[in-house]
Amino acid sequence: MNKPQITKEYLDNIKKDINYDLIPYDKNKAKTSNFSTNKTQLPNNGVNRTKLATIKDAILGSGLKSGMTISFHHHFRNGDKTVKLVLEVIKELGIKDLTIASSSFTDAHNFLVDYINEGYVKALQSSGCRDTLGKFISGGGCDTPLLIRSHGGRARAIESGDLKIDVAFIAASAADEMGNANGMMGKSKCGSLGYAIVDAQYANKTIIITDNIVPYPNEIISIPQTNVDYVVEVEEIGDPKGIMSGAIRLTTNPKEELIAHNVTKIITNSQLFKNGFSIQMGTGGASLSVVKYLKKHMIEREIKASFCLGGITSHQVDLYKEGLVDVLLDTQCFDLPSVESIYENKNHIEISASMYANPHNKSPYVNKLDFVILSALEADVNFNVNVMTGSDGIIRGASGGHSDTAEGAKVSIVCMPTIRGRLSCIVDKVNTIITPGNTVDIIVTDYGIAVNPLRKDLLDELTQAGIKLVTLEKIKQFAEGIVGKAKEIEWDYSKPVAIIEARDGSILDIIYKVKD
Amino acid sequence: MNKPQITKEYLDNIKKDINYDLIPYDKNKAKTSNFSTNKTQLPNNGVNRTKLATIKDAILGSGLKSGMTISFHHHFRNGDKTVKLVLEVIKELGIKDLTIASSSFTDAHNFLVDYINEGYVKALQSSGCRDTLGKFISGGGCDTPLLIRSHGGRARAIESGDLKIDVAFIAASAADEMGNANGMMGKSKCGSLGYAIVDAQYANKTIIITDNIVPYPNEIISIPQTNVDYVVEVEEIGDPKGIMSGAIRLTTNPKEELIAHNVTKIITNSQLFKNGFSIQMGTGGASLSVVKYLKKHMIEREIKASFCLGGITSHQVDLYKEGLVDVLLDTQCFDLPSVESIYENKNHIEISASMYANPHNKSPYVNKLDFVILSALEADVNFNVNVMTGSDGIIRGASGGHSDTAEGAKVSIVCMPTIRGRLSCIVDKVNTIITPGNTVDIIVTDYGIAVNPLRKDLLDELTQAGIKLVTLEKIKQFAEGIVGKAKEIEWDYSKPVAIIEARDGSILDIIYKVKD
Repeated sequence: MNKPQITKEYLDNIKKDINYDLIPYDKNKAKTSNFSTNKTQLPNNGVNRTKLATIKDAILGSGLKSGMTISFHHHFRNGDKTVKLVLEVIKELGIKDLTIASSSFTDAHNFLVDYINEGYVKALQSSGCRDTLGKFISGGGCDTPLLIRSHGGRARAIESGDLKIDVAFIAASAADEMGNANGMMGKSKCGSLGYAIVDAQYANKTIIITDNIVPYPNEIISIPQTNVDYVVEVEEIGDPKGIMSGAIRLTTNPKEELIAHNVTKIITNSQLFKNGFSIQMGTGGASLSVVKYLKKHMIEREIKASFCLGGITSHQVDLYKEGLVDVLLDTQCFDLPSVESIYENKNHIEISASMYANPHNKSPYVNKLDFVILSALEADVNFNVNVMTGSDGIIRGASGGHSDTAEGAKVSIVCMPTIRGRLSCIVDKVNTIITPGNTVDIIVTDYGIAVNPLRKDLLDELTQAGIKLVTLEKIKQFAEGIVGKAKEIEWDYSKPVAIIEARDGSILDIIYKVKD
Repeated sequence: MNKPQITKEYLDNIKKDINYDLIPYDKNKAKTSNFSTNKTQLPNNGVNRTKLATIKDAILGSGLKSGMTISFHHHFRNGDKTVKLVLEVIKELGIKDLTIASSSFTDAHNFLVDYINEGYVKALQSSGCRDTLGKFISGGGCDTPLLIRSHGGRARAIESGDLKIDVAFIAASAADEMGNANGMMGKSKCGSLGYAIVDAQYANKTIIITDNIVPYPNEIISIPQTNVDYVVEVEEIGDPKGIMSGAIRLTTNPKEELIAHNVTKIITNSQLFKNGFSIQMGTGGASLSVVKYLKKHMIEREIKASFCLGGITSHQVDLYKEGLVDVLLDTQCFDLPSVESIYENKNHIEISASMYANPHNKSPYVNKLDFVILSALEADVNFNVNVMTGSDGIIRGASGGHSDTAEGAKVSIVCMPTIRGRLSCIVDKVNTIITPGNTVDIIVTDYGIAVNPLRKDLLDELTQAGIKLVTLEKIKQFAEGIVGKAKEIEWDYSKPVAIIEARDGSILDIIYKVKD
């Protein structure tokens, strides 16, 4: 008997406990493949050994068509130059009706107003929206409502398929010709590429845009070539100075100092404040001041933190350098010292937005937080928090990791002044819910500390520690006693301008057009 | 007009350019979630903050049932203790008819014969199979044929869904209670977890097994907690001394020295041998000797390599330490010095099996190789290579990255002695095709160098360099003139015992039972 020929029929016959089709090998035809690999018969040996292209060729090669969805990351914040660069070519190519699903928009993206008006952009999805673009959206300038997601919610949407990205454009400060990329090296470094990592993994096509082609292989691989289709070299992807936004500063405001003292009191009196505790701190003035006070207690009581999470600033890097925290888990670098640290320090670890906060993976890092310190524009007496719309109802904020960390952390602390701009920050009902009240444990203002009645354990703990607590009603009463009740915003409820998605993908709130 | 209620109907009405259902937020019910996250209402605040379990509870929790598919990695090679540990509990639980899809089997897995005979294991899928287990399979001991895949082919199968892993069991030498794991720290370190990374990403459930629980968060995260369901602590996962297999040694065999000289001649006379060249070297004696000779040429001609790929040994680590190679891309550490290096050296980078060699992602690293040096059991006059069955037809090898690198590299060089054990290594037709002849560029034996006629460019280049070439027919003739023609193996073609999958998923060859 001769050796049987390997035919489809023969294979079907011997196939057993194998749940897919067995097909005979054909050396001239790979079964299915993105890249041809029959090296003896194809040009360049049939193997794709460079992905360098112009933006135009990369866009054409990606198959981008009108009506599709593209994505960007916002690690450059106000310094971003990449979105504009790409959209100029898209306009030149006459591609219209795009949905832009960016991890966030900043002041650098005000120009999008023109692209919406001209029909190149049909819809926006983002964590945040501000300035001229925010006013434009709030005024009903875009027919399709803006879709707002938290950082964790966006990662969830991408991984679940709710958000299908046709082409991801990823600015990277160092990339090799095959697409191995990072944000840690080069003149335009922004640090962690945490948001973009998820886009690269799930987008149909991924285009890396860099102003720094490095020799192959790139020595730090945040995004591997296995997730990249094209690499484009440009003059400048962004201005690292723009990373440092106005929100990040140490406070000299006495109200914020008072808030910081209150937060420090809460933390240092908690049973969770012990060796190995973990914390995320926002970039608001008050929450940054907390670092200063907390450090003193940590040194005095010989307490070391296990990790700091989230957006990382020089303040956490300093704690790390002084041996007061073991690991920094970093989805976004907020300043230049943190950008330098993530390159230099082994235990300053880059994490993706999914690792950070996607509620539907097998456990995001937010779930291991002891404390998170957050800021807010306003909160209502049911502990619902608004970080998105101003007191005039105009969109001027970002969801960020607010709802993600509030839900994940054992103790979520939200800080705000009692009164801001002659308005009470505690109201009957917030304009916009970004973080639901049942996930907010403590609200701290300069007037006092209010604990969510759902957290009886915290009420008991703080009371026993002799900390005076107030109710949100009391804070509101006090504030309104000084500044009065705010005038109601006049909304046009026939015109929804933004949809707020909760981190699990359900719809938490809707923002409407503000009447002129 | 009041603010509209957010109902399903209202959302359907305003939904626009959103391709999924909009559902109102319900604070008591997350939309869909692996973990409950409503922290005020559930025990332990509703958030899963530890995943520690016994093997038994982890298996029960994973939902493992008879007939399912489980996976393991083989980074511990002959030192592995984890597969046995897990199967003992599976037996205790009475779970039967499992398919084990391991990245490979070694001598440590001979005990599987009993588990197959007793019905706990129904089918095996692997890169390699040897010793008692190989003999058992070749003798027709397992009803379902063994499925052989290359390392890249296995990653492709997992990512494409051809191989659906129900539960992945991953031995890790350091893990925290949430599952952040690596193989680089602890008493049982094995280095890169390259094969297991893919399993963790795609398995329905992932169980980390460790003998070293570290404080949270683990300071090196090869496998993130986001891909892990359970963490099990055991006495000992493996013996690092067993990593060093018999295949890895520097040669003192004069035939192998001759082969190494021939290979060095090929490389150093190639136009590709210039600053920035790249190379993968196998673990055979000859290919390791090449390092020694190559190094001399590199120093003399001031040539530095850009990267070494694949299984990494102390020889590549030495090149790295001496500044002769910039980056080590490591899917598997083959000895203790490489295990130490991957922990210590920033540019010794851990890569997954998919990044290494999956032909269907957007480009595996094998595609950027200039040279790969491989060994073989036998080759035929059409350049087809067998690394799986011995001259007696018995399974005693591993596919590994052989076909992956042969196809990806610009120049694939396969080494073997002219005569082994009184048999010619060049034959008319190999017993088993693992690497198809059209992807093998050069075959080197101690008798001479044969270039694949498909690579006219290489024929010209080497001839012009004054290197004497021979044909495979000539080598075969010479060998058979000394040892004669080998006796034909008597196969039982009614009994296929192993199916060889090409890296693209098609079927390349079938191994049959050897008649007694």
